[in-house]
Amino acid sequence: MATMGGGGGKDGGGGMAAQAGRLGVVASVAFNLAALAFYLRRRYFGGDDAAAARKKAEAEVAPSSGKPPVTKDSIINLDHGDPMMYEAFWRGGAGERATIVIPGWQTMSYFSDVGSLCWFLEPGLEREVRRLHRLVGNAVADGYHVLVGTGSTQLFQAALYALSPPGPSAPMNVVSPAPYYSSYPAVTDFLKSGLYRWAGDAKMFDGDTYVELVCSPSNPDGGIREAVLKSGDGVAVHDLAYYWPQYTPITSAAAHDIMLFTVSKCTGHAGTRLGWALVKDRAVAQKMSKFIELNTIGVSKDSQLRAAKILKAITDGYDRAAGDDDDDSSGRLFHFARRKMVSRWAKLRAAVAASGIFTLPDELPGHCTFANETVSAYPPFAWLRCGKEGVDDLEGYLRERKIISRGGGKFGADGRVVRISMLDTDEAFAIFVDRLAAMN
Amino acid sequence: MATMGGGGGKDGGGGMAAQAGRLGVVASVAFNLAALAFYLRRRYFGGDDAAAARKKAEAEVAPSSGKPPVTKDSIINLDHGDPMMYEAFWRGGAGERATIVIPGWQTMSYFSDVGSLCWFLEPGLEREVRRLHRLVGNAVADGYHVLVGTGSTQLFQAALYALSPPGPSAPMNVVSPAPYYSSYPAVTDFLKSGLYRWAGDAKMFDGDTYVELVCSPSNPDGGIREAVLKSGDGVAVHDLAYYWPQYTPITSAAAHDIMLFTVSKCTGHAGTRLGWALVKDRAVAQKMSKFIELNTIGVSKDSQLRAAKILKAITDGYDRAAGDDDDDSSGRLFHFARRKMVSRWAKLRAAVAASGIFTLPDELPGHCTFANETVSAYPPFAWLRCGKEGVDDLEGYLRERKIISRGGGKFGADGRVVRISMLDTDEAFAIFVDRLAAMN
Repeated sequence: MATMGGGGGKDGGGGMAAQAGRLGVVASVAFNLAALAFYLRRRYFGGDDAAAARKKAEAEVAPSSGKPPVTKDSIINLDHGDPMMYEAFWRGGAGERATIVIPGWQTMSYFSDVGSLCWFLEPGLEREVRRLHRLVGNAVADGYHVLVGTGSTQLFQAALYALSPPGPSAPMNVVSPAPYYSSYPAVTDFLKSGLYRWAGDAKMFDGDTYVELVCSPSNPDGGIREAVLKSGDGVAVHDLAYYWPQYTPITSAAAHDIMLFTVSKCTGHAGTRLGWALVKDRAVAQKMSKFIELNTIGVSKDSQLRAAKILKAITDGYDRAAGDDDDDSSGRLFHFARRKMVSRWAKLRAAVAASGIFTLPDELPGHCTFANETVSAYPPFAWLRCGKEGVDDLEGYLRERKIISRGGGKFGADGRVVRISMLDTDEAFAIFVDRLAAMN
Repeated sequence: MATMGGGGGKDGGGGMAAQAGRLGVVASVAFNLAALAFYLRRRYFGGDDAAAARKKAEAEVAPSSGKPPVTKDSIINLDHGDPMMYEAFWRGGAGERATIVIPGWQTMSYFSDVGSLCWFLEPGLEREVRRLHRLVGNAVADGYHVLVGTGSTQLFQAALYALSPPGPSAPMNVVSPAPYYSSYPAVTDFLKSGLYRWAGDAKMFDGDTYVELVCSPSNPDGGIREAVLKSGDGVAVHDLAYYWPQYTPITSAAAHDIMLFTVSKCTGHAGTRLGWALVKDRAVAQKMSKFIELNTIGVSKDSQLRAAKILKAITDGYDRAAGDDDDDSSGRLFHFARRKMVSRWAKLRAAVAASGIFTLPDELPGHCTFANETVSAYPPFAWLRCGKEGVDDLEGYLRERKIISRGGGKFGADGRVVRISMLDTDEAFAIFVDRLAAMN
């Protein structure tokens, strides 16, 4: 998963947080969304003629994001990894090839392939998933079962369900090395399952029975990770949401037991809520599929058909470009996105240098088998640390400056660090780096 | 919900069932799907030239259902309420008006309306949901929050999450009067939540703290239900998946605290996985929304856009027909579906009479405010009972005759009764009634 989601940590508010707090878990997305809504309302709906302003704001809401456009004085929300950066690509020629038409009578049945292990998986989506992995070389798909989920968040829960012992034993321990993705604790514990429970930082864990979540490249800090626990009966789930060539060099084709992916961070279609898993073991794949059946009776076929079309447009774009010597990359998604990431990271590092109070992780270069050259990593999140004296709550410090980020505490780290999305619109990103450069 | 889903009960198979059995719960969809797949494989892939047969079968799979077409000797699967009956309507003129085109750049953000309580609900869907309820008059929507879910199954779980006490108390008891929808026990218990647990037949329940699931018209037996428990701090969740004029007279606009609906059984688009809830209390609506955020970070926007278009086509169809004196109902969904249900129930009752070994619930007439006449109920499932001596396992008896149904045990009833879907294709339904009429 490693997509968006709630945060574990120590803050939050209201009744839900009281419940969540008992579990050492926090409902931070709700909190952050509420905070954002509050700021927006103040900004757009404040003053005496609130009703008129509201009408105006409603008209201004962009139809594709539900968020008002930003201005120089806006609150800039970089808390979630909302991948709006990709919209420009899909408004181009490739986007036309990804347009989908669904007639009224299409995909009415629950079933996609009744004889298949994952009976709700559209065969066309499976085909395009396998084709994309062959193109990119980031994961071995041959010999693996493909499963589809409502985002990789659902597949993550499906994996916990599948890997937990069915008997009356104590709940399975779920761990991940800090800093870990902030949603892992919240999503693991929100139903107080007797099958599994969040057990914190993998580096501090001492036991034989566990599921280790390995997010690589890591959300939040972009680092390349391997499982830190090797003992006993433990199993690893590899969250490879960001193992795509725009973010990191593809150094080899991953071949782990369970690998999770999502279109949100590969193509930018977060609203489609579509993830997939590559699973080696048939029994595990069956149980994961069973989870999705019980949880949502399968996955939207409309999203599956659309994701298939989108993945097809990407792979077709590279097939068309093969052998083409000119540098037109208008149809090549990973080239488009990498250029964006290179440019944004350059601007961010310049702003950090201009400010003088922040630091960022070092660049990690490596040989990319997809690009066939040595390239740096340009993670989808900036893990921004502040050295200024007195700033112990960097999230709060930035919020006062109208930048919404996600504080380190939610990732099992300290408060002097935050996670910042690098994937929002050009406009929001530009305002963010300008503001950052001026802080000192 | 009351859609499809797993069964509670006593059978099942494999490791999952061992786990589920501990909870008094059973993984029967998996079992039934496995059984169906087994039959299909035997039928299509048996013999020596299995590979050739497989290729042929693959080509034969209908693209909109993933199920092979039925023949006179087929296994007929009426276990799930797969609403293929509706396909003919959507292949007509109304279907053209429900066609949706989604450009590549559309709906990329996680957000649909960032300032809204249900921030992932597409405003266009909310509008059409409210409009449809105004047309049909089956539920009060004014003054209610509209929530969207990945099918009403997800909204059912969201309601349990929202209604369970947040503190360290014992799990909330979840009950429903038998015969209850077979998925209720399985979906309530599959994660062994510490927040809630299945507590069985509401009529046998003796306690003050509970959630009562009221499915009306009832899945499986079509009866009109009210909450049977009124004591203590109990809360009711009304599953109104079938409270539409094709199935039952609309006698009044329901105005319960939490009401669940799904497009699957209203329009026939099960593959779209789209349900909605009308919720009176703001805090409950917020917690339900939070569940969906943690579970799947919202709901497919593609499905929401499509559902909005489909609901719009229905309401528009009636708007167009208003004042029109001729009887052309090609654009009127509820008229189409009611004619189908009347015809199918007539055939089923004739077959039951011809056979002599079965009985069905009586017809329930009432004044329908939507049709403005007295009409009978024509439930989406037949609750078929067998009086023949020696037939204590009617599900098994029918399976031997190549009809797959869902046995009474899964609904908290006895084995001499089964639930049969009335919503499959014309072809499957015709073969079913022919076979039934010949049993004696």
